[in-house]
Amino acid sequence: MAEVSLAVSTVIFALRSSGRFGDDEGQRRLWLPLVRRIREPFDGRWALPGGPLGSDEGLAEAATSTLAKTTGLAPRYLEQLYAFGDPGRSGEDASRVVSVVYWALVGDDEAKAARVGQNVRWFPADELPPLAFDHQLVVEYALWRLRNKVEYSRIASAFLGAAFTLAQLREVYEAVLGRALDPANFRRQIEASGAVEDTGEVLTGVRHRPPRLYRYNSTVDLADQGPLGRLAQK
Amino acid sequence: MAEVSLAVSTVIFALRSSGRFGDDEGQRRLWLPLVRRIREPFDGRWALPGGPLGSDEGLAEAATSTLAKTTGLAPRYLEQLYAFGDPGRSGEDASRVVSVVYWALVGDDEAKAARVGQNVRWFPADELPPLAFDHQLVVEYALWRLRNKVEYSRIASAFLGAAFTLAQLREVYEAVLGRALDPANFRRQIEASGAVEDTGEVLTGVRHRPPRLYRYNSTVDLADQGPLGRLAQK
Repeated sequence: MAEVSLAVSTVIFALRSSGRFGDDEGQRRLWLPLVRRIREPFDGRWALPGGPLGSDEGLAEAATSTLAKTTGLAPRYLEQLYAFGDPGRSGEDASRVVSVVYWALVGDDEAKAARVGQNVRWFPADELPPLAFDHQLVVEYALWRLRNKVEYSRIASAFLGAAFTLAQLREVYEAVLGRALDPANFRRQIEASGAVEDTGEVLTGVRHRPPRLYRYNSTVDLADQGPLGRLAQK
Repeated sequence: MAEVSLAVSTVIFALRSSGRFGDDEGQRRLWLPLVRRIREPFDGRWALPGGPLGSDEGLAEAATSTLAKTTGLAPRYLEQLYAFGDPGRSGEDASRVVSVVYWALVGDDEAKAARVGQNVRWFPADELPPLAFDHQLVVEYALWRLRNKVEYSRIASAFLGAAFTLAQLREVYEAVLGRALDPANFRRQIEASGAVEDTGEVLTGVRHRPPRLYRYNSTVDLADQGPLGRLAQK
């Protein structure tokens, strides 16, 4: 039987302003880092960061290590996305690779400090260049998973600090979902969901009616993975 | 770099009565087929059906082919569950295997006709023997996924024919969730969800107040997989 080799790739999402990555001004949007390929197949194209699985390396461990090598960051959230293994995905003449893909979220503050390695560049998720392999589909699926998850788990907190205003939380939702949300409706829905609780503190540095600070209700998992929860901790 | 090999395994769920598999009497419950291993590691233990990925074989294709070889059946529903790749999962001395696991549902009628191959036996999902590798965790996670999905998708229809009574639908939910449900509450919730619609027909062969037949609202996907929907069709 011909050899099928195994790789681990990671879709890394950060939330930054809409201008240059690292800017603090303007509307926020999702960004992700890509690596320019320097060999065939797809020489010169942009691709998701990743590489072959080390012989003693766990899958999540490989994804974390890719994240560190690409951005110098540790993930706030990391989850297995899917294993992609279509026989034709590496191109006609290339040897066959099955990729186990993870998706990760990095926090705002960390993303500001992200290293940009050689051949690495951050792109807005909705303005990606043509990608190598089936990575366009991989990114689409990761975005779909993130958008679904932000609505039924406290995953947005990975982009925020421990305490946040409802306006900050809404900005995360808006950036992830890619559309504006009505502030009053958003407040009502979030309060009704019981997902967040009032910290009793207000935002400092604002003199007139400083907004309240909230935190996620910590009795709820970041994202429930059922029996895999104990694996995800590894 | 030492070799990591790739396998595809499948958790196959059928719904049968609580007695012997294939019986029609009694309360229904979830069953799944296991294969007795005939070599090390874990010689003699029961394991999920599967095997190495063929060089030209897609991942879902490998899972479907395992299902056919093990039971003679085609899946009503098939979805990728997770890739399991903990370095220690094959045991201390064995070579390393990463398993991409699928889960499948087979219909009631098909399950009745299921072949039982050599070294294959069906077990109730809540009375499994000790399993090889990390297959206990794999089955737990598949059960967790099925239980979550039955509540927010029309996945229960895979166990039923095109038309069904609300009592039959409730029996599926009860078997999957492993608990009794109040018939009146269940009817109210299902009707309020808009997931099913009245076919206008009634169950034949019942003379006194024959129950109405329903079908799932076909405008809803069996289980929404977003951009992967087109891959799942392959």
